[in-house]
Amino acid sequence: CIVLRPWGYQIWEAIQWQFDQVIKAHGVKNAYFPLLIPESFLKREASHVAGFAPEVAWVTHAGDNELEERYAVRPTSETVMCESFSQWIRSHRDLPLLINQWCNVMRWETKATRPFLRSREFLWQEGHCLYETKDECVADTMYYLGEYKKLAEEFLAIAVLTGRKTKAETFAGAEWSSTIEGFMPDGKALQMGTSHFLGQHFIKAFNIQYLGEDEQQHYPFHNSWGISTRLIGALVMAHSDDHGFVLPPRVAHHKVVIVPIIFEKTKESTLDASRKVRDLLHPLHPLLDERDEVSAGWKFNCWELRGVPLRLEIGPRDVESGSVVVVRRDNRHKETVATKDLKKRVPEILEEMQRDLFMTSKKHLESSIVRVKTFEQFVEATDHKKIALAPHCGSAGCEEQLKDKTQGVTSRCVPFEGSETSETCINCSERAMYLVYFARSY
Amino acid sequence: CIVLRPWGYQIWEAIQWQFDQVIKAHGVKNAYFPLLIPESFLKREASHVAGFAPEVAWVTHAGDNELEERYAVRPTSETVMCESFSQWIRSHRDLPLLINQWCNVMRWETKATRPFLRSREFLWQEGHCLYETKDECVADTMYYLGEYKKLAEEFLAIAVLTGRKTKAETFAGAEWSSTIEGFMPDGKALQMGTSHFLGQHFIKAFNIQYLGEDEQQHYPFHNSWGISTRLIGALVMAHSDDHGFVLPPRVAHHKVVIVPIIFEKTKESTLDASRKVRDLLHPLHPLLDERDEVSAGWKFNCWELRGVPLRLEIGPRDVESGSVVVVRRDNRHKETVATKDLKKRVPEILEEMQRDLFMTSKKHLESSIVRVKTFEQFVEATDHKKIALAPHCGSAGCEEQLKDKTQGVTSRCVPFEGSETSETCINCSERAMYLVYFARSY
Repeated sequence: CIVLRPWGYQIWEAIQWQFDQVIKAHGVKNAYFPLLIPESFLKREASHVAGFAPEVAWVTHAGDNELEERYAVRPTSETVMCESFSQWIRSHRDLPLLINQWCNVMRWETKATRPFLRSREFLWQEGHCLYETKDECVADTMYYLGEYKKLAEEFLAIAVLTGRKTKAETFAGAEWSSTIEGFMPDGKALQMGTSHFLGQHFIKAFNIQYLGEDEQQHYPFHNSWGISTRLIGALVMAHSDDHGFVLPPRVAHHKVVIVPIIFEKTKESTLDASRKVRDLLHPLHPLLDERDEVSAGWKFNCWELRGVPLRLEIGPRDVESGSVVVVRRDNRHKETVATKDLKKRVPEILEEMQRDLFMTSKKHLESSIVRVKTFEQFVEATDHKKIALAPHCGSAGCEEQLKDKTQGVTSRCVPFEGSETSETCINCSERAMYLVYFARSY
Repeated sequence: CIVLRPWGYQIWEAIQWQFDQVIKAHGVKNAYFPLLIPESFLKREASHVAGFAPEVAWVTHAGDNELEERYAVRPTSETVMCESFSQWIRSHRDLPLLINQWCNVMRWETKATRPFLRSREFLWQEGHCLYETKDECVADTMYYLGEYKKLAEEFLAIAVLTGRKTKAETFAGAEWSSTIEGFMPDGKALQMGTSHFLGQHFIKAFNIQYLGEDEQQHYPFHNSWGISTRLIGALVMAHSDDHGFVLPPRVAHHKVVIVPIIFEKTKESTLDASRKVRDLLHPLHPLLDERDEVSAGWKFNCWELRGVPLRLEIGPRDVESGSVVVVRRDNRHKETVATKDLKKRVPEILEEMQRDLFMTSKKHLESSIVRVKTFEQFVEATDHKKIALAPHCGSAGCEEQLKDKTQGVTSRCVPFEGSETSETCINCSERAMYLVYFARSY
């Protein structure tokens, strides 16, 4: 388990704020369901319990007493929500039911844990929606995936691939899973959000039925979708450099830090001017670093490390000339801006930086994709930290074999468009089912 | 455990939003700490583990494996936070450290559970702050209590008593605890928020020290403070009537529901007018109930039950005269308001309702306090659903005896002012230490 310190938790708050607005505008309502799930609930959907049981943390005792039934600390909440939904839903007028919860979940990973990327407890949102028709349900499953892509690209400035998971990588209990996949600068893919079409697996297991307009009982259709604090890890990896973290301007709460360059003689006038700039830029939540005990250079490093998008330097000469030096965190580009123009120019620079961060990420992603046709090309690409777009037969066993042969290359997703192929599988030489993105991953 | 459905969770979101702003303005930073606490951490502070161990849910297994050490699902986070703080704090420059987390906690109550008031899992915020001096720490402990009082009275419209808990009711591990206590219409008190001065109990148990300006090592001082989803229960009890729930206007997300009175001939013009009113009152998140399948009367009941503060009725005659009938949920008072005045008048009515709800609560609280001097008066008062302000010796054993003799009357708090007395204890006739509020409680 990890501790989210304030600077990290603030990023999660920013993501929550951003995404919560999006889903509320779409009609989703937030709710909260119990942390503990009776073992009997988990067992009702066979593939679900098979998928999650190995990594469940079990509550077996309360105080000194052993419990009659064990409870799982939720690894995900399909079962406990469906138990409630079965009591809520009676008629077609109760549909669609669009529910989301922001909460903690726990998966006792046996793989090596990594801060943010793979911890046993993490924070996430899980949306769970029920619909009268399959069409509506599929359309909304894709809608949420589209919003995840927007969040990743327009807010976090991380370019992503989208597509369907292969059978081997599908969520335990889903008909199919869709995903957004980022590609980190170290050459590993990162699953950043998933949206699952669950069909009627849980619906039937929990006997959820509604009375249709036709006066008949029907089973609704179900999806679920989630993003987690893993996105903080994605941010750290995607945008950091040797000087530390780089926060995309839209994510940063404090978009600007003001560092006054203090000399004994001009201290008061420099601080005065700095405070005026702080007040002027109030909507950007500027930090003003007035500390006496450390040098300006020390402050530069301190805030670079933490990734504040812009640094404003104000020294005696700037005060005299009525200007400020603005330094971008990402490319360290300096620009002298007249104080009277700050209110207009600073937000522009922030947007330029946001756009540049995304363009860098996009270029890296696009230039990392290699279309391969043979096993040798596949190995060559993935050994050189690329994403291999390869024909594959679609068999889970064949994927497993590929993973073993390559020490860990896995399928990321099947692109939604252009996945048709008449080639043969790069591993087993059977007829290929589709083109798949493969890469090493977190 | 309970499920918070959207209409209830929305109240929690409103409380979070309101209180989060207050503490952030005070300099508190949000963070997140692990759900699971190793048993060895809990044991480090002796009175803490003694107080919480009987109601801890224990995780003993992960997947198929028994764990080497048991983990408590957090009942509160003093221990796990202090373990982190001991690694964060080095110098007086790291203080004060003002940390809060919004999270779920679990206490396996052996008493009867009640929705919102006493459930085994609940949501809360827990603030944990460390200071160089005792004075600062005490002052801030009282500051947070003051903010709880404001939240209860100005936001939730519930009048509260404030004071210190007696020794018997003090938090396990605190030097002293302060509380806000509401008094429900059924004659039972409800603890609605607590702020604890923890002194150095946990600080020493986790060996948290800082280097002072004097170049010496010192132990800081520590407080913690919390409010929970119990406040939703307080709201339900404080303001409901025989028609259902009453939401104070400041808490309600949807402050207004518009119910068009539809007749076949004038349907379109009525709906048109209703939509215009909805758009006009946009900042109040008005609901417009356009449903065809239920009558206007059915809609009135539906929204009264859910407690929407104001109902706006718009029928053909209102459309003609350019006015709207505004009905207050609490006293069902009706007022005809010209459409052109709505934007000004509706917020006024909402504020009048907010104030009236609080005044009703305040009168009920104040008229319920009976100053008693003998055991007979004490029994008389508490049997008649009153709060007894009684002289007491301060002994925990004597309080326990009183509770037994009265089938459940407990001390609520010692008022901060005017608790001095030279009388004798109403139970044991020893010299009284102070005046104490006693009542039955949830």
